[in-house]
Amino acid sequence: MKIYLSGEIHTDWRDEIIAGARDLDLSFTAPVTDHAASDDCGVAILGAEDQKFWHDHKGAKLNAIRTRTAIEAADVVVVRFGEKYRQWNAAFDAGYAAALGKALIVMHGEEHSHALKEVDAAALAVCETPQQVVQILTYVLQGTLPE
Amino acid sequence: MKIYLSGEIHTDWRDEIIAGARDLDLSFTAPVTDHAASDDCGVAILGAEDQKFWHDHKGAKLNAIRTRTAIEAADVVVVRFGEKYRQWNAAFDAGYAAALGKALIVMHGEEHSHALKEVDAAALAVCETPQQVVQILTYVLQGTLPE
Amino acid sequence: MKIYLSGEIHTDWRDEIIAGARDLDLSFTAPVTDHAASDDCGVAILGAEDQKFWHDHKGAKLNAIRTRTAIEAADVVVVRFGEKYRQWNAAFDAGYAAALGKALIVMHGEEHSHALKEVDAAALAVCETPQQVVQILTYVLQGTLPE
Amino acid sequence: MKIYLSGEIHTDWRDEIIAGARDLDLSFTAPVTDHAASDDCGVAILGAEDQKFWHDHKGAKLNAIRTRTAIEAADVVVVRFGEKYRQWNAAFDAGYAAALGKALIVMHGEEHSHALKEVDAAALAVCETPQQVVQILTYVLQGTLPE
Amino acid sequence: MKIYLSGEIHTDWRDEIIAGARDLDLSFTAPVTDHAASDDCGVAILGAEDQKFWHDHKGAKLNAIRTRTAIEAADVVVVRFGEKYRQWNAAFDAGYAAALGKALIVMHGEEHSHALKEVDAAALAVCETPQQVVQILTYVLQGTLPE
Amino acid sequence: MKIYLSGEIHTDWRDEIIAGARDLDLSFTAPVTDHAASDDCGVAILGAEDQKFWHDHKGAKLNAIRTRTAIEAADVVVVRFGEKYRQWNAAFDAGYAAALGKALIVMHGEEHSHALKEVDAAALAVCETPQQVVQILTYVLQGTLPE
Amino acid sequence: MKIYLSGEIHTDWRDEIIAGARDLDLSFTAPVTDHAASDDCGVAILGAEDQKFWHDHKGAKLNAIRTRTAIEAADVVVVRFGEKYRQWNAAFDAGYAAALGKALIVMHGEEHSHALKEVDAAALAVCETPQQVVQILTYVLQGTLPE
Amino acid sequence: MKIYLSGEIHTDWRDEIIAGARDLDLSFTAPVTDHAASDDCGVAILGAEDQKFWHDHKGAKLNAIRTRTAIEAADVVVVRFGEKYRQWNAAFDAGYAAALGKALIVMHGEEHSHALKEVDAAALAVCETPQQVVQILTYVLQGTLPE
Repeated sequence: MKIYLSGEIHTDWRDEIIAGARDLDLSFTAPVTDHAASDDCGVAILGAEDQKFWHDHKGAKLNAIRTRTAIEAADVVVVRFGEKYRQWNAAFDAGYAAALGKALIVMHGEEHSHALKEVDAAALAVCETPQQVVQILTYVLQGTLPE
Repeated sequence: MKIYLSGEIHTDWRDEIIAGARDLDLSFTAPVTDHAASDDCGVAILGAEDQKFWHDHKGAKLNAIRTRTAIEAADVVVVRFGEKYRQWNAAFDAGYAAALGKALIVMHGEEHSHALKEVDAAALAVCETPQQVVQILTYVLQGTLPE
Repeated sequence: MKIYLSGEIHTDWRDEIIAGARDLDLSFTAPVTDHAASDDCGVAILGAEDQKFWHDHKGAKLNAIRTRTAIEAADVVVVRFGEKYRQWNAAFDAGYAAALGKALIVMHGEEHSHALKEVDAAALAVCETPQQVVQILTYVLQGTLPE
Repeated sequence: MKIYLSGEIHTDWRDEIIAGARDLDLSFTAPVTDHAASDDCGVAILGAEDQKFWHDHKGAKLNAIRTRTAIEAADVVVVRFGEKYRQWNAAFDAGYAAALGKALIVMHGEEHSHALKEVDAAALAVCETPQQVVQILTYVLQGTLPE
Repeated sequence: MKIYLSGEIHTDWRDEIIAGARDLDLSFTAPVTDHAASDDCGVAILGAEDQKFWHDHKGAKLNAIRTRTAIEAADVVVVRFGEKYRQWNAAFDAGYAAALGKALIVMHGEEHSHALKEVDAAALAVCETPQQVVQILTYVLQGTLPE
Repeated sequence: MKIYLSGEIHTDWRDEIIAGARDLDLSFTAPVTDHAASDDCGVAILGAEDQKFWHDHKGAKLNAIRTRTAIEAADVVVVRFGEKYRQWNAAFDAGYAAALGKALIVMHGEEHSHALKEVDAAALAVCETPQQVVQILTYVLQGTLPE
Repeated sequence: MKIYLSGEIHTDWRDEIIAGARDLDLSFTAPVTDHAASDDCGVAILGAEDQKFWHDHKGAKLNAIRTRTAIEAADVVVVRFGEKYRQWNAAFDAGYAAALGKALIVMHGEEHSHALKEVDAAALAVCETPQQVVQILTYVLQGTLPE
Repeated sequence: MKIYLSGEIHTDWRDEIIAGARDLDLSFTAPVTDHAASDDCGVAILGAEDQKFWHDHKGAKLNAIRTRTAIEAADVVVVRFGEKYRQWNAAFDAGYAAALGKALIVMHGEEHSHALKEVDAAALAVCETPQQVVQILTYVLQGTLPE
């Protein structure tokens, strides 16, 4: 089963999930989480831009080669909304995954529940911690519950 | 041609577009823009909930009957990001529309360009004002440019 | 907007919905609700069968010409589970509609909630009465809530 | 070839099929068949609920991560209807599989033939025993008939 | 409801169905049934060919503009196999319609049942006469059986 | 039936087809054929660009709102390759239409046959003149050949 | 690359292709070619039938589990029309494969060219011998032509 | 990740990309790049033609067995436009890939930017050299930028 880990890139939640699920038959994909590389990849490879908009645009499109391909290949898409930033790309990925009929798991703190109600409404699970994602994946694969 | 107008519901941008495009052969759809009705529709029709999460959940799903049906029927999806709120539902709609291959027009102020770069990367036009949307739709239908 | 009314055929719930929604811009479709005609259509048109299985089989396939075409054309599928009979065809229609990504509304009494939890999990609304369906459709089309 | 075994979870029919088909190049998937785990997985992982409806809802959605992914990956879906319970989830799975164009095999006792006629009409085979499913799979893969 | 009438072009079965169904809300499409025009359309419009194969090829492709478009637009595809000729195009249309998930009605005499068993296996109704097709369409639209 | 007329914009071939087919039940769509408007639409509406690449890019994307929507809505796509320019957009449209399964008609002079062989291989008709397109459409709709 | 070999089952053309292509990275699938088993599989496994029609029907549906699954999984579908029998199932498979967008290779003697023109029109290659199919597959995989 | 390398066949750009990306987990496919074989494959295998058009046609269709299958299987399609020839097949492949939602990378010299603006508008990256393609693929797989 293929899991795409979308969203917040400033904490190590992906590592926690991957470590916690190490004994399961899963493969994980994710966006590039090196923030500087992700922002500058477009101009670093395709040439500098004077305008910030096109600087960003070239980078966002290069990143889309990775992210769209990975979401389309995934069975389950996990999207985490963190404390900071607007994270519109996380919500965009959730919508993209929902339209493709992917099984969607959304992670966020309770304080964002109202603002994320449309995203949560498209999810098969809404949780708060990486441990819960590991428990979900364990249950989905093995049918066993946490003790 | 069918246009879905997604996103910010606190200004009258939809009315400006619809008025400006009144002479074009277009039909417009949109989410329910009565904020109170949109928040409470679930419990008003399907019964009260003690937990705010389920209160929101029932409402978000009722709204999805309208929004997903309308996005799927649309030829063009316009998504506006305003000044306030997190507007994750707008970004979700943009992702949903992108995955379905809809022509996407994104509206937002320049200050959000960096945060919205992934959304903009999936769009066929990025603009700031309702007038520009009217000009785009006029050009797309009639081939004429603003004077 | 096109609404398919699936499921229980022994009460007049379809008439209640259609009457209640008479002022909305909706078109309704449904299976043949004449029980005898529905059971015997296959042999009446295509020739008698000695075996009850093939008698039923021919009829079920003729009915499928109507029901599958109507579900595929629908925007919203309403499925009602009544008090009697096993109603596997209602659950089958719900699964068929869910796989096609149709907006699904499920109607049933509270006593069936546990047995129908997988069906309800695929629905955008779960309710009990035709009046609630009318209220949902009114809200979805007009954005107004019941007083 | 991938086979999904849906439906009744109170007898060991899945084990009989898997044992009988052990020499064929097949992989089998199935829902979680531990009834208690299946009922409580939602609250065990995602937190307790006061309302039974939401208790069930969270569980049904977690189970859907497994079941929908497996049905979509399957080449053949076998659905068994047993003697007890309403088994609406089995009929829902059959409808879901039919809409996706999966090859559908339905198992049930003759006494349910009339009630299941719409489900049977969508199937490529209707049978009663696990041995027959093994014989079907043997024939489909190897072209040999039972002696 | 849109009905495509495929297959045999040497008897007036299409006229019988269209006349019999004149009071139903149906639209009918069909291939070009002028045999000479159908055979020669390619070279008449696109230029003569020395080789019979390319003469036929150009014509068959022009006809495909009409037939594939019509099958894809149809809700129901009726395919008639007559007494004469090999009628591989009829069977081709049946396969094409089946793969697109169209409701398929097959008409043929009993003497062809064994040879057409794979085609019949994909159909929702197998019948022999235009009157039966009219009865099927009447039942599907109005729910009434022949007296 | 909906016909999209793609490709060369420097002669009046579209007008010839539309005039010749005026008595047929057809609707025609096409790209914007005002060359200057087509080139400058992006910057005229969305703001000037220093770089020619982005000037073109904005325009090409605005035009794509019209062209992709029209190709997706079309039943038949006619692509004309003229004497001048590289016309890569015409070949792009042909590939786009082919991948969507549209009926494709290609028009070009004999001198381009070798260079266009891959495009022609995806077409249901290859011709040279607008009159031939009119004859094809007349035959497809009415079954009559030119005298 | 996956190749499905459909059609005539009375000569050893499949063996010739498989032997000739033994050094290529290909996998081959085919219908059950044991004529007696293919005809009787339905009743042998699912129970006897008094009516020949249902005897055939049960068998044809069991065979469809194999054939439809294999066609859907194939990259290339080769369909051979032999000298004898009506072979409507071969033409049905060709139509099924064409509608799914599979690369289609048709094999038949020149004497059937006119009757098969609609099938040939959907093919990417029309040939007469197993050797030609081997040469096509060799060219497609390795880019080398026969000496 | 699967990469299809489409377009110009007269320089060794494919070899440069494959060599540069040798340490990445990628598989590459491409059209037959032996120009003579590609032109003559149809008649060499399927028999000679008097008319150049049919000579080309048979070859183009054989090549399509390889190219369409490979594009459909690819995650990323790279299309290179060289200095010479009209290269309509390259633009056709780009349109085909775009309609299928493939991640598209376009390579061409700056002098073709205006003529290729519609193709570039559908791409996620526009570049000039094989080294840039290698850098893109390295970034997409490993998240690292060129030093």
